[in-house]
Amino acid sequence: MTRTRSEAELAFLSIAEAARLLRRKEISPVDLVQASLARIERGNPRVNACLTILQESALRQARSCEREWTRGRSKGPLHGIPIALKDNFYTRGIRTTAGSKILADFVPKEDSDVAARFAAAGAILIGKTNMHEFAYGITSENPHYGPVHNPWALDRISGGSSGGSAAAVAAGMCFASVGTDTGGSVRVPASLCGIVGLKPTYGLVSVAGTVPLAPAFDHAGPLARSVTDTCIILEVIAGKYPRGLPRPNYRMLRKNRPRRIRIGWPQGYYFERVEAEVRRLVERAAQTLAKILNARVAEVPLRRLAEDVEAVTNVIVAEATYYHESQGYFPARAAEYGDDVRGHLERGAKVRAVDYMRGLDRKRAIAAEFDAVFEHADVIVAPATPIAAPRIGDTAIRVAGERETTVRAELLRMARPANISGHPAISVPCGFTSAGLPVGLQLIGPKWGEAKLLAIALAYEEATEWHARHPELK
Amino acid sequence: MTRTRSEAELAFLSIAEAARLLRRKEISPVDLVQASLARIERGNPRVNACLTILQESALRQARSCEREWTRGRSKGPLHGIPIALKDNFYTRGIRTTAGSKILADFVPKEDSDVAARFAAAGAILIGKTNMHEFAYGITSENPHYGPVHNPWALDRISGGSSGGSAAAVAAGMCFASVGTDTGGSVRVPASLCGIVGLKPTYGLVSVAGTVPLAPAFDHAGPLARSVTDTCIILEVIAGKYPRGLPRPNYRMLRKNRPRRIRIGWPQGYYFERVEAEVRRLVERAAQTLAKILNARVAEVPLRRLAEDVEAVTNVIVAEATYYHESQGYFPARAAEYGDDVRGHLERGAKVRAVDYMRGLDRKRAIAAEFDAVFEHADVIVAPATPIAAPRIGDTAIRVAGERETTVRAELLRMARPANISGHPAISVPCGFTSAGLPVGLQLIGPKWGEAKLLAIALAYEEATEWHARHPELK
Repeated sequence: MTRTRSEAELAFLSIAEAARLLRRKEISPVDLVQASLARIERGNPRVNACLTILQESALRQARSCEREWTRGRSKGPLHGIPIALKDNFYTRGIRTTAGSKILADFVPKEDSDVAARFAAAGAILIGKTNMHEFAYGITSENPHYGPVHNPWALDRISGGSSGGSAAAVAAGMCFASVGTDTGGSVRVPASLCGIVGLKPTYGLVSVAGTVPLAPAFDHAGPLARSVTDTCIILEVIAGKYPRGLPRPNYRMLRKNRPRRIRIGWPQGYYFERVEAEVRRLVERAAQTLAKILNARVAEVPLRRLAEDVEAVTNVIVAEATYYHESQGYFPARAAEYGDDVRGHLERGAKVRAVDYMRGLDRKRAIAAEFDAVFEHADVIVAPATPIAAPRIGDTAIRVAGERETTVRAELLRMARPANISGHPAISVPCGFTSAGLPVGLQLIGPKWGEAKLLAIALAYEEATEWHARHPELK
Repeated sequence: MTRTRSEAELAFLSIAEAARLLRRKEISPVDLVQASLARIERGNPRVNACLTILQESALRQARSCEREWTRGRSKGPLHGIPIALKDNFYTRGIRTTAGSKILADFVPKEDSDVAARFAAAGAILIGKTNMHEFAYGITSENPHYGPVHNPWALDRISGGSSGGSAAAVAAGMCFASVGTDTGGSVRVPASLCGIVGLKPTYGLVSVAGTVPLAPAFDHAGPLARSVTDTCIILEVIAGKYPRGLPRPNYRMLRKNRPRRIRIGWPQGYYFERVEAEVRRLVERAAQTLAKILNARVAEVPLRRLAEDVEAVTNVIVAEATYYHESQGYFPARAAEYGDDVRGHLERGAKVRAVDYMRGLDRKRAIAAEFDAVFEHADVIVAPATPIAAPRIGDTAIRVAGERETTVRAELLRMARPANISGHPAISVPCGFTSAGLPVGLQLIGPKWGEAKLLAIALAYEEATEWHARHPELK
């Protein structure tokens, strides 16, 4: 009755489909874990996505899940599904490095809230993923554990800081992951690795038990291979919604497809400097979206963004330095940081309190500017990144033929505003460059509007094929 | 039937008694305003308490109130009562200097919330009071408008920053006033001028429409000649209480006198360095309070306070500088500030963001330490000031024979913790030094506990005679 499935078939199942097969007992959680472990075993030496591989405990848990499924005791769609966590989520009894040398031997006594939610949902933790050191960077070129390689082109970065999570999901090493996103750390690697990454509304997903970067900007969010899988993860890790606002439900996304929506096409920031190929893909995506949803596309003003975002940077770097100072890591152990992170921390130490406060004021102004846009639009479309994945080692870049700037600045530029404002934003695959590199479409929605944002993203995904492609680890 | 009352008799009536006489038509609001104006006319040239005297508008309003009282249209116990406002409360159409040169000609277009509340209650604004420049100091030695002189000894300071308000109330120039209190600016002048000053729970009284000093510490609160009058003012200016917590009611204070309470006698901060005479008066006040309320006195720990308060100073000075920078006053118009305020602003400009954040953490720790004390105590007793009023011009001081320190530091020391923690604190007269200078007892209560705190203060007041003495403006 049950046909045999290849390792790749199993490893790239959607979570919804895997849960269906588990329910029908056509597959076992042990099959899924073995498939993922096999992908890790073959892929990880080249991709370097996982810092810790939990082979034994994952298999043990899989056998336990198998017994539970056999007895019909389901904990929901994640029960028996192999997932990975970015290595800045505390996992009880499991090393949590945050990609740093300073925490190389840190073994938390408690789970982060997200890890505890996954455990309660029966998900199987298969690995802890590589990342930019202390989540303080956007390339995942880790000086202590080596760079994460992009599964679509191994000489390129995966993006960061949740680069290991995105690469692992893209390469079929796990079914989904959760990353943190302070300035784009979920959406940027999702865009560069051709998967879906959601930064939810600020505060919706608990970051308790994570190694923080800048608390006023820290979000946690899912990385997955489809919008539906993203929604399944979000449902498990999301906290409460304000009364009266709909909680996302993956079974209702298609039914709740919105019609006649207003798509906001932002002026003055998101399309100022975008690589031509990326711009074309995002423009085409907006056209597709408008067509399938019978939507109006209207320009929306976000004029002050460039200047305001710059002022807020002071807040982010100061908050980061304060954390490292208060833990006694910096400046005491400055030599143990990578050069880039040490440089950021030094910069943060110099920020004046008055500039910090000015930044907080600008942060509020940015949030208000977005809120005003959403009075007249249901969703904003933008690139998730203005470029596809750069080469490992590249630091300078020239985007769209303009003045030279840094890879870091360019990769952060499209993602950061939604961190500052706290609005939910998702990156969904919207095509490939001529070099075969994936590119993400960013959709930004009103606060607490994940249910509608995911329904819009699913409508787009179902009209396209991009998410169905998987890298071959050439 | 109605007997003639002297100007002094009228000017020093309690608000409750004045309201009773108004209701019985034994006196008119015009009598009260004329009495207060006469006191201002004679006293202000020596005391310098009022920067703006609203003779015409106050008399006009008094006549209007008189008609309303005649028709039996009472707006409550403040209807027709002359009050003064510290000159950092916006008053529509009336100059609001904040004691500064920079705002010397500033005429607000809107009322502050407190001014609007007074207007709605029918209170008559008779003057705007002198203060420390921009409320940024504790002596009211104003470089632009001259110092406020203490009505009990004209060569001494009135305390600050609400020094003009306290002096005006003490000298019978008005029936009550409202000041702002960021580090003691209501309680300190109340203590030094022998009147009652209440700093309510943080957030209870709106500071909207005041010239701010440091928003996270800014409170507004009444200055009056008795606890009951203080309560009458608070009732008019207070916002909402959290559900289930009692709102103060001046008619119920005596009835609700608490019994068998626990008085907390703090260790490690409030009695470390106190002038011997002040210590004796405060100790005697605690004994009196224990006796009349059948209370237990127990030592309570506030050990970390000294170190923590110091760390929080960074937050206060940085917030102050941020406001002056954001208004374009500083450093652009640095020459227009007094030397002391300019020095504080310069200091605030140098605070690092990380130290600001550390200060905010300590602020939370201080609030938690007080909250913990109030698990086991109903009220904390402490001096309001460790000394009586110093001489005008004195900057250095030696308290209790210890190392020399500054008048500023000593006057702030007892008051500041409750600003940091946000707990309500009141200063009530508790005696006079051998030099005839008044001294205040500070009572600190749990958050939102004004009803009980005022009832305790009233019980003490009724057992003593200190509040009934008035200065003779020698």
